[in-house]
Amino acid sequence: MESYQQQLSQFIERVKHNTEQYLGYPVSKDFDYQELAELIQYPLNNLGDPFIDSTWKVDSRQFEREVIEFFAKLLHAPENNWWGYVTNGGTEGNLYGLYLAREIFPQGICYFSQDTHYSVSKNLHLLNMRHIMIRSQANGEIDYEDLRETLRIHRDLPAIIFANSGTTMTEAKDDIGKIKSILNEFAISQHYIHSDAALCGAINPFLSPKPSFDFADGADSVSISGHKFIGSPIPCGILVARKDRVDRIARSIAYIGCLDTTITGSRNGFTPVVLWYAIKKYGAEGLRRRAQHCLDVAEYTLQALQSIGVEAWRNPNAITVVLPEVPEAIKIKYQLATANGITHILCMPNVETSHIDQFVADLKEARV
Amino acid sequence: MESYQQQLSQFIERVKHNTEQYLGYPVSKDFDYQELAELIQYPLNNLGDPFIDSTWKVDSRQFEREVIEFFAKLLHAPENNWWGYVTNGGTEGNLYGLYLAREIFPQGICYFSQDTHYSVSKNLHLLNMRHIMIRSQANGEIDYEDLRETLRIHRDLPAIIFANSGTTMTEAKDDIGKIKSILNEFAISQHYIHSDAALCGAINPFLSPKPSFDFADGADSVSISGHKFIGSPIPCGILVARKDRVDRIARSIAYIGCLDTTITGSRNGFTPVVLWYAIKKYGAEGLRRRAQHCLDVAEYTLQALQSIGVEAWRNPNAITVVLPEVPEAIKIKYQLATANGITHILCMPNVETSHIDQFVADLKEARV
Repeated sequence: MESYQQQLSQFIERVKHNTEQYLGYPVSKDFDYQELAELIQYPLNNLGDPFIDSTWKVDSRQFEREVIEFFAKLLHAPENNWWGYVTNGGTEGNLYGLYLAREIFPQGICYFSQDTHYSVSKNLHLLNMRHIMIRSQANGEIDYEDLRETLRIHRDLPAIIFANSGTTMTEAKDDIGKIKSILNEFAISQHYIHSDAALCGAINPFLSPKPSFDFADGADSVSISGHKFIGSPIPCGILVARKDRVDRIARSIAYIGCLDTTITGSRNGFTPVVLWYAIKKYGAEGLRRRAQHCLDVAEYTLQALQSIGVEAWRNPNAITVVLPEVPEAIKIKYQLATANGITHILCMPNVETSHIDQFVADLKEARV
Repeated sequence: MESYQQQLSQFIERVKHNTEQYLGYPVSKDFDYQELAELIQYPLNNLGDPFIDSTWKVDSRQFEREVIEFFAKLLHAPENNWWGYVTNGGTEGNLYGLYLAREIFPQGICYFSQDTHYSVSKNLHLLNMRHIMIRSQANGEIDYEDLRETLRIHRDLPAIIFANSGTTMTEAKDDIGKIKSILNEFAISQHYIHSDAALCGAINPFLSPKPSFDFADGADSVSISGHKFIGSPIPCGILVARKDRVDRIARSIAYIGCLDTTITGSRNGFTPVVLWYAIKKYGAEGLRRRAQHCLDVAEYTLQALQSIGVEAWRNPNAITVVLPEVPEAIKIKYQLATANGITHILCMPNVETSHIDQFVADLKEARV
């Protein structure tokens, strides 16, 4: 029988190998957090609200607060009126945003496009929220006409908008400015807008024109994934919300000696250090360069695929290149997700033109 | 200005120091996962259901399945009728159990004792579930008489029981056998029992008599924390549920090519390796020894406190020793949680009699 040490080393080899190949998931792999390895000796736990002191001291909440502040600024959150925490991933941030919305507007209806990530339907179900799915345009963006018609019918009820800034398959971005003008058209003043910027939340701020997706554009909360564009060995995310929206659900808790507004009790204390380390290392300028690299490689990918006759396309300023479903062997080799006859390449920061050349060569051969 | 490397090393020093002192949280710290440190180089992600294959391959789901199987057996789950996953902590496991219960009995009322962890009220609110809080006995266990009276009034509706096996403050254990006999008394056949065994799920199997808390006793789902008795640098947990209960909420998802029955999409791939490593290293026998050590130290603590005139007590076979609120300086030094005039010492596996001697000496001095 194999010892568990042998099993472990085989496992690590396999993980290393499988990390080398994938192109189909929005997960950066060009990170180096070896300086943080020592932390896995300690039971870090960011119990409770990052902004309120606790009797428990084995935590990284100081760094968590810095991370939230960095993103609050990047997302143009209103001064002195923001709050947030480091989540276990984009989904938890979305759940939190929807939860806030439901608490504020229990009678509200949630509207979201059909290209929205499947976890949102799960969240809405979990939260027991009334919801209506809106058609998407061919590029994956919400169909504003369908949204207008639907809002018109339900203008007597509060509207909860779940907007995507970067859909899963095509990285389409719903325009919050356009959505707000529809809400205004019907004088729906009772509304809440959550922005799911899982992939693009750390890219959008550096794009020109800047997509309409953040607090300046009208969002009440924004969720970003930490393990996507930034990169993390453990899934994590950043949730930032308008503080006046959060104060509603604050709840006084004697046990941990703090107001606990987060969803779970015990919280990961390692990933806030990961994100803190990344923003210290990159800074806003580093993130900008990282985003530009992705855009350049995405454009290169598009051209390369088109040059071999593949009907590839990408949304404006997207780092995702969409193409028709590829042969099974290619799907497996590059770990490509496929839905409704399309697949996609994610030009994450670690992807270089050499990887694309290899992929295009493989695809060309497989198609012959 | 300090460099971020300086900030990081100061932080690590502080974490190390703060880890040395605490006695008031149910968090083991005697772990050594240095062999897993290399894993923080890779974007591990246990996307989706651990038991269904995925196109994404940078995962540790093989280990996750082994962990779930180990606990399913330990908890006497019905053969070939169990399912589970590694969660982000006990709270997520509880949320999942309650979610299952609500899906099966949308009209059900959830009953839980007033000593139940505060996160459960949050979960019930999140899930929009009708619920009734039941009185606790002085030791923290649910008051079966109050439960009986309350169930009698609502016997026309399905009952969802949230049972504690180890409450937060006094480690009291609700007896599922007794609860089932009350349900039978009123012929409430539509019921669901979730067992919150955050701290004790990995201790109870080795106690004699074994507390009535697992699948053999009538639980439909059990949630255990991984970072409590077992120990983990990152909060995590184990959720095991009867498979026939879970099949109800399975949901077919094209995108990740698998049925996704978990709450989040992206999931931590590191902590399943941590738990796998721990159970391989300890085995059931090692866990049994670990539990015995805790019980011995708890008894020692009780005697030591009583010998200096402190009115300390503990529940049968508990590793928690309860005492009246201590002076502020002691609370801070040992990171002790306090609620309703009582505090507690958690005799976790890392706690030795020498730590207790020090604590008792400090307490004696502070009380003079």
